[in-house]
This record gives sequence, structure tokens and C-alpha cells, in this order.
Amino acid sequence: MTQSNAASTHGAATGSDSEIRLAVSTVIFALRRAKHPSKKWEIVMPVVRRTRDPHEGKWALPGGWLRASEGLAAAATRTLAETTGLHPAYVEQLYAFGAVERSTTRVVSVVYWALLRADAVRERAELENVEWFAVDGLWGLAFDHDEIVQYALWRLQNKLDYSGIAQGFLPELFTLSDLREVHEAVLNKPLDPANFRRQVESTDEIVSTNEFRKGSHRPARLYRTNIEKGLANHGPLQPESH
Amino acid sequence: MTQSNAASTHGAATGSDSEIRLAVSTVIFALRRAKHPSKKWEIVMPVVRRTRDPHEGKWALPGGWLRASEGLAAAATRTLAETTGLHPAYVEQLYAFGAVERSTTRVVSVVYWALLRADAVRERAELENVEWFAVDGLWGLAFDHDEIVQYALWRLQNKLDYSGIAQGFLPELFTLSDLREVHEAVLNKPLDPANFRRQVESTDEIVSTNEFRKGSHRPARLYRTNIEKGLANHGPLQPESH
Repeated sequence: MTQSNAASTHGAATGSDSEIRLAVSTVIFALRRAKHPSKKWEIVMPVVRRTRDPHEGKWALPGGWLRASEGLAAAATRTLAETTGLHPAYVEQLYAFGAVERSTTRVVSVVYWALLRADAVRERAELENVEWFAVDGLWGLAFDHDEIVQYALWRLQNKLDYSGIAQGFLPELFTLSDLREVHEAVLNKPLDPANFRRQVESTDEIVSTNEFRKGSHRPARLYRTNIEKGLANHGPLQPESH
Repeated sequence: MTQSNAASTHGAATGSDSEIRLAVSTVIFALRRAKHPSKKWEIVMPVVRRTRDPHEGKWALPGGWLRASEGLAAAATRTLAETTGLHPAYVEQLYAFGAVERSTTRVVSVVYWALLRADAVRERAELENVEWFAVDGLWGLAFDHDEIVQYALWRLQNKLDYSGIAQGFLPELFTLSDLREVHEAVLNKPLDPANFRRQVESTDEIVSTNEFRKGSHRPARLYRTNIEKGLANHGPLQPESH
């Protein structure tokens, strides 16, 4: 499916009043160096410009119709790859949005959110109709996509409190400062380094290594994700193949 | 939709390979006096016996096809009312289950879970094909409904830690013992009363009243839900009408 089709699927449905179509959309978070000097990183996401009605010309979440032979998470990662050329560090189902009036025909959208590692992201300016925008201040998307983006951001922010999710943005080895800077980007506020260190060291989400990053100051210890804990806990939910 | 139809919708889909049907199913939790003397309450849920293939004769979650003119939460509460004759104290979307092989034709099921207040539940033994079973030890349901039930229970158990969800099982006024007995039923283990009191009093989820319940021991103070907090926090998610 080309990008213009992927962005325009909501206009393609025809059929009887009883037809309900199923779409899968994705909110894809990544880090980018912040333009504003107050913080190091900002959260950005790709959106696609719609080339036909409804909402022609507006930006929308990457997505497309679910295929009969494809699982939900697989549809989400396919969409993500088509839009960014990348594979996510983390994927999770956000919510099924099915208000009767959310589109001109009846469409239920199962939305996934994903994280891309910082060292993997490059802006694909050459990909037609796709642009990356900072999540902070992003409004005016098509359909109910504004609400969806805010809910995904809220989910990510809450997850910081009880999981190692922030590590999904980082390379395999990272310093405590790197991790704090990710939390600051997600929460959009500065964090006290000493408090942050105490908080993180009281969890078992990260594991220290014997490696250090050398820099202009004293070398900083490198950490990695605790593989036994992973990035999040899904209890008895069977992992979806994607 | 009659109960036998509601339980058998998975067998009714026909059409081309590209047809994906959308169902809404419900996991409905309620309290019942426990048979075993070790605890006061047990969590029970209604299930419907299927009257046709696939899985004829097996028990399944209440549910049905989504109607084009109906929202997702509305479909869930309609199903709940058809199966139990009741209205829930709490409804929340659990997850969209859409593995390709979960049914004989392609069905994506958006599952909701709900709580019924203890004083509202009565077993509707006369409703054809519907029975209430204890969640503990409930296996062998049709499709992937075992996994769905376990995930709903896990969600409920986790939610005890950060919300007033347990109050959804109770009447408007309740004692701390009532609340502790609900936690014990959900977690399936005894809780120390003094620790529980300390833990609950450190939250703002309940509000004390000047009313007391008289009994064989000294009167116990009655509490109610803190209306400003409600039973749970959904952030920026727009409430679904149901």
C-alpha cells in the first residue's frame, strides 16, 4: 500500500449501512534533538498528509485497512515500516476507537503506539506526504487523531512510573544522564539528577555494566536494560506476532 | 438478539476471504458469597453456552456482532443487559483480540470488562444458556476466551494498586471491612486489617461519613467513593457513551 493510499483509506469504504471497516493506525514516538535550549530532546512523531476526502490536506496518523490474513500488531508494524522504513523497539496496543461518528463511513480503528530507538531514527524527508512533528503542540489532525495522540502520550508518561519503557528510546548501552534526559523529554520538564538516580536505582529495571563512556567530565558508567524485566509487563496476555 | 444467537455469532459469518467481522464481548465480574469458609466473597462471571459450531456446547463470553449504528461501549453494555438484565457500575475497554486463527472465520473482538454492584446481582438461573461461574479455576471456554478472562482478572488485580476500582463492587456506603473483603476476593488471599486500613487511609479514594453500621460488635463507620476521583482515571480519553 503506498503512503497516499494508506492515508486515504477512510474515504475508500463503500457499501451498505451495515458495513463496518477495520483499520489499524499507529502513534510512533521517537526522540529528536530539541530546538529549544531548555531541554536536550523532544518527542516527535510521523504523520501523513491526506490526499483525498474526508479531511483532504490534513495530517493523519499512519495507518491502513486491516488485511484478512494479517494480525493486528503485524498490521501496525507493517504500517510503521511503510511510513518510516524502521522497526520499533516497542509496540503496544493503545485502544480501539469506534465512535459511530468518527469518520464519514463506519470505521473502527485499533491503534497501536510504538517507540523507535534514537540511533535508528533518521528523518525521511524524501518520503512523499510524511513529516515528523514535535508531539508537544501538535493539533488539527484529521478525524479523532488529536485525542488519540494525547491518549498515547498520557499512556507513555504514566508508564514511566512503573516500567522501563524509557529505555525503548535508547541504544543498548546508556548512562543515567541519558535516561534522565529521556524522562525529561517525555514529561516535558526538568528532573533533579540526584533524585532521579535514587529513584532509578531503587528499581530493578536497569543493570549496571563495567563499561564507561568517556567525555569531557569524569567517565560515566554505562547501563543496559534488565532483560528479565524487559520494557513492560503484560501479565497473561499472549505476545502478538509482529 | 437472543442469547443463543449472541453466543453463536462466530459461526454465522460468511463471505469472501477479505471479510473481517467485528464483535464486542464482555467479561462481567460480580461478587458472590464464597462456598469455601476461608473467604467471604468470590468473583463470579456469567458465560453463555454455545448452541452451534464452532465450539458448540462450550461456554463463551457474552457478546455479539457490533452494529453499524452503535458505539463499542454501547454494544458492550447492551450485551451485558441482555445476558444479566443489569447495568454495570463500571465499564472499561480491555483489549482488541484479533489473532488470525482465533475463530474459523476472521473475527476481531473488542472486549470490555465490567463490574456489577453486589446488591444488584441476582443469579438469573432462568435465562437460557447463561450460568455464573467462579473465575478462579474457570477454564475450557470457547475460542481464546480463557486468555481473555485471565487478562481481565489481571487488569482488575493491578488496578487495585492505583485506583478505587474495588468500590465498583460495593453499595454506595460501605465499611473498611467490606472494602478489604473485596480486595481479598480479587487477590484471592487474606489481607491484614490494620495494614489495609493504613494503606487505604493514605489514598484519597474514599471519604468517611458520619454514618455507622450497627452490628454485633462496635458500630463500624461507613465510607463512600470520593466523587472527584471516581473509580479510575482515564486521562484525556473521551468517555464513550454507553
